[in-house]
Amino acid sequence: MDLSLFFAGTAGSVPTARRGLPATLVRCGSDKLLIDCGEGTQRQLVRSVGLPEITEVLLTHLHVDHWLGLPGMLKSFELRDRTTPLTVYGPPGTVALMDAMRRTVFGRLRYRFRVVDLEPDAIVEFGDYEIHALRVRHRGEAYGYALIEQDRPGRFDAARAAELGVAPGPDFGRLQRGEAVGAVTPEQVVGEARRGRTIVFSGDTAPCDMVRVAAHGADVLVHEATFTSQERERAQQTGHSTARQAAELAAEAGVGLLVLTHISTRYAGGEIRDEARSVFPRTEVARDFDLVDVPFPEKGDPELHRWDPRRARVLADAGPGGA
Amino acid sequence: MDLSLFFAGTAGSVPTARRGLPATLVRCGSDKLLIDCGEGTQRQLVRSVGLPEITEVLLTHLHVDHWLGLPGMLKSFELRDRTTPLTVYGPPGTVALMDAMRRTVFGRLRYRFRVVDLEPDAIVEFGDYEIHALRVRHRGEAYGYALIEQDRPGRFDAARAAELGVAPGPDFGRLQRGEAVGAVTPEQVVGEARRGRTIVFSGDTAPCDMVRVAAHGADVLVHEATFTSQERERAQQTGHSTARQAAELAAEAGVGLLVLTHISTRYAGGEIRDEARSVFPRTEVARDFDLVDVPFPEKGDPELHRWDPRRARVLADAGPGGA
Repeated sequence: MDLSLFFAGTAGSVPTARRGLPATLVRCGSDKLLIDCGEGTQRQLVRSVGLPEITEVLLTHLHVDHWLGLPGMLKSFELRDRTTPLTVYGPPGTVALMDAMRRTVFGRLRYRFRVVDLEPDAIVEFGDYEIHALRVRHRGEAYGYALIEQDRPGRFDAARAAELGVAPGPDFGRLQRGEAVGAVTPEQVVGEARRGRTIVFSGDTAPCDMVRVAAHGADVLVHEATFTSQERERAQQTGHSTARQAAELAAEAGVGLLVLTHISTRYAGGEIRDEARSVFPRTEVARDFDLVDVPFPEKGDPELHRWDPRRARVLADAGPGGA
Repeated sequence: MDLSLFFAGTAGSVPTARRGLPATLVRCGSDKLLIDCGEGTQRQLVRSVGLPEITEVLLTHLHVDHWLGLPGMLKSFELRDRTTPLTVYGPPGTVALMDAMRRTVFGRLRYRFRVVDLEPDAIVEFGDYEIHALRVRHRGEAYGYALIEQDRPGRFDAARAAELGVAPGPDFGRLQRGEAVGAVTPEQVVGEARRGRTIVFSGDTAPCDMVRVAAHGADVLVHEATFTSQERERAQQTGHSTARQAAELAAEAGVGLLVLTHISTRYAGGEIRDEARSVFPRTEVARDFDLVDVPFPEKGDPELHRWDPRRARVLADAGPGGA
């Protein structure tokens, strides 16, 4: 399963010339999920990888800068005669908000549109992976999300199976699914289960245990870093994190890669990066249109690719590399 | 008075990679008005001339693509501690819509915020100029706007006044204001009144008499041209204009310059331009961030300047050339 993140907007609260409002596109195989949808997200996507047929939108919280792009995007989907259903998940209050928006902005949509208020600790199942809501520490009810891929079965050793006298064909399948074939047991020919990948999104939050625990050993932690340590008090007052705090948390959790986002207008990005790397070197500061590729652990490390317009079409059509 | 238009978004209904949703910034002297405010307008301005302290927003109608950028922009103004009052004008329903947005999106603002439903044919006075609402032919109540500058007094001939024995000083002022000084009458020393400038904005509309009449002799007509003639029926069904129809109307009205905007995603712009110019050669198709400078008639013709990032700062600070 291809797994990648595309940063459609990396600003906090107010857009800048270089950064749009928060939105991250998550591609899991053929699924396309959007985490947050700040004003202008549809245009950010149109300007880069194209506006894909997003099937799920997960809102971290209901502050305006995180969802105001949704009504217009829903309307644009309708204008292009979408038929695919779309579900919006978010903390309690999301249903009421979307209902108000339906009445005042986008009206009755012609495709199936569903809104779900998630309880704290809710789990949404998606076949090969699931998404866990994480209650974080912001102003008002706010969630992070953990995307947790199921462990994959171990490798099947066909040569060993043949040696043990199993004929290629249906019996191979039985062994792979965990059934014995005569005296041959799956353990003899199937390797250890390979761990699934985990990506954790902090949403807007002060450093919090919920994210620290969920991010334990995660392949990628996408954490907000609204401020540097110089604004530490302001971060605390407003329920945000500094770059250092995010890096300390990433170090404690032992994540593979820390990607910082939700950067205040006062920073260009370099200060945030330097502060975080002094604590946790495997840190990147996302810019708009950057892509993070998350290969299977045995195939390589997660890696951030800077935006290259020449790759745009490839990404839009197929999603990036991966296994 | 400097007078110019800055096109912050030139798409119809759906944004494209090159065109944002409708918004036109009008600079009249030190006033900065915004006509329509599609989703993403604040970012379009931040990316180009900067987000100015807009004091009036005029909505042409209440379709989502024309106003959805307003709640986020209002919120951003608050985040930068704005104190300048802001007034939103629009057709009937604007007050109710903004009230719903206040309740669900932007809350109570800390600067003075006023919303006014304009009657068809309403006139809003702005000192040196006024803005007339024009009821146009779209789906639902929709307005165009005419910005009409007052005629300016004629030139004062100081040499002639001195010849006639008037002493430089307060008496010059009296003559300029239309009072006689002894036997000397204003007509002897003040030239003919110089006509004020007129800019007409069609908003979204099928070709209509209201715009045709208001645009008579206008310096600039900003007209929508959603389609080419190939989609003439579709234009009629949806209450829009073709490039040819807009050009025919401009020719009949005898405008100085026709600027087309609200271009459907299906066109790059060249087809729209060619079709219109075959009827009315003084036509331009606006691209995002283009600027139209409208000098006093005696100083030159209105002219469209393509976006040049190097000029951005100048425009943001001072407004362009003019008299």
